[in-house]
Amino acid sequence: MKLPDFLEQDRVAVDQALDRLLPPATTPPETIHQAMRYSVMAGGKRIRPALCLETARLFDPDPRGAMEVACALEFIHTYSLIHDDLPALDNDDLRRGQPTCHKKFGEAMAILAGDGLLTFAFETLAKAPIEDSRRVRAIAEIAAAAGTVSGMVGGQVADVEAEGKPVNAAMLEYIHQSKTAALIRASCAAGALAAGAADDDVARIRRFGGKIGWAFQIVDDILDVEESSAALGKTAGKDQQQHKATYPALYGLEESGRKAAQLVTEAIDELAPYADRAERLRELARFQTRRRA
Amino acid sequence: MKLPDFLEQDRVAVDQALDRLLPPATTPPETIHQAMRYSVMAGGKRIRPALCLETARLFDPDPRGAMEVACALEFIHTYSLIHDDLPALDNDDLRRGQPTCHKKFGEAMAILAGDGLLTFAFETLAKAPIEDSRRVRAIAEIAAAAGTVSGMVGGQVADVEAEGKPVNAAMLEYIHQSKTAALIRASCAAGALAAGAADDDVARIRRFGGKIGWAFQIVDDILDVEESSAALGKTAGKDQQQHKATYPALYGLEESGRKAAQLVTEAIDELAPYADRAERLRELARFQTRRRA
Repeated sequence: MKLPDFLEQDRVAVDQALDRLLPPATTPPETIHQAMRYSVMAGGKRIRPALCLETARLFDPDPRGAMEVACALEFIHTYSLIHDDLPALDNDDLRRGQPTCHKKFGEAMAILAGDGLLTFAFETLAKAPIEDSRRVRAIAEIAAAAGTVSGMVGGQVADVEAEGKPVNAAMLEYIHQSKTAALIRASCAAGALAAGAADDDVARIRRFGGKIGWAFQIVDDILDVEESSAALGKTAGKDQQQHKATYPALYGLEESGRKAAQLVTEAIDELAPYADRAERLRELARFQTRRRA
Repeated sequence: MKLPDFLEQDRVAVDQALDRLLPPATTPPETIHQAMRYSVMAGGKRIRPALCLETARLFDPDPRGAMEVACALEFIHTYSLIHDDLPALDNDDLRRGQPTCHKKFGEAMAILAGDGLLTFAFETLAKAPIEDSRRVRAIAEIAAAAGTVSGMVGGQVADVEAEGKPVNAAMLEYIHQSKTAALIRASCAAGALAAGAADDDVARIRRFGGKIGWAFQIVDDILDVEESSAALGKTAGKDQQQHKATYPALYGLEESGRKAAQLVTEAIDELAPYADRAERLRELARFQTRRRA
């Protein structure tokens, strides 16, 4: 499925910024910078950066520092993929159609490349040209969203622990909210913060992000059932194989699709005050839940 | 060897603050919070926090926010120990006399506990009650010191890559500076930043920290040769067994001891402008390089 034009433009700009911000592959120790670049530059739609940039543009047509925040979010997303793919976790050999980081660089280097990207994300945020008080709020928002209590690491732990066990609706919601929705919510909120949005607007955008983030994870689960490995660029059907807690497993495909659509509608309702200015964000929300790999 | 009184007091205060700041072990997902607490609360002299607190007190007798920075440094130090101990890296079963995190909680949980602690360190920093502009500088300083270019992860990579290979003085210096000295330097600089020190003072304290950090790593290498596993609380002689690049291996024990002593003298010289106020920092530098496990 083709990206909407503006999303393709964002993707190109983000790829350039990622390349500019990351330490060159020739910087010693070279192996780790090669490994970090290998995983970050492996492609992807750059949805988190796009959400950050587009929410920032709601409040400032040329938001200074939003690109640094956008790239930091992608560094964190990439670190999480590298560590999730490790043999001790999901043990995946394929990611975006390429060997996973540990398949290419070995397990030690993959662990360290993930650590390096997570650390570099916060260095990038700390140096972003954003007003100081907003910068620290963005860092706190993103760190919590990546963390263990109600963030990405917590969701990954719950996901690992739920494997092969009966899972209830509350546990499934915790996993989805924490593992995926939290960082997408933070991507939107941090974009708004970087662009100087008022507190009410940041809160509204945070709700928008939470809803589409949840919808994205449901759609991911649906795609894992419906699509082939070739189309996904990663091993398909792994969720079922590993007895993962997923929406389709608990509610079936049809009800899962309905839930995702409802969340997108609710998310888009949050954007009403921004009228036409929010058209790209609406398009992004709809595209991401209609996508096929 | 008994800790000096003030260092013992700092250690008790830091332990209390670590316990207060970390998510309770009953917070779901419980396993990860148990694993994080297991490794953080396993003991240790809390040298990085003490350096942060004592440098902060040079500039402010009651430095607000310095304790949060001190704890964040210990979270980062602990994450690095958890990941370094993993089977793919140093493959250590014993740390501070206890089973390592992956021995106790499994490899997946140890990887995620390390990730969680690193992330929580930055959340703690982002929320520390320090003036905004100083908070972002402290975050940038610490992130760079923990990073891949001239920080802890880079040093670990170089260390892994140097195993079993002939190592020269430049490479050994890079490893020591990055793997250990960088975070100790940042511990001192961040304490000074938190306490409102002038730029000249921050720079001076940074030089002090870099020198003692380098000395500490040399002493660590010496202890690994001289002490038993029981005294160290970790597997002794591992460096030699794993053909690690160390000071004693390249220069011998005597010359290594001389180099460490010289660095401590140079570090203490940096403190001359602070006269009696810096007595604790001097004592800390001397203690840490005279220590036996």
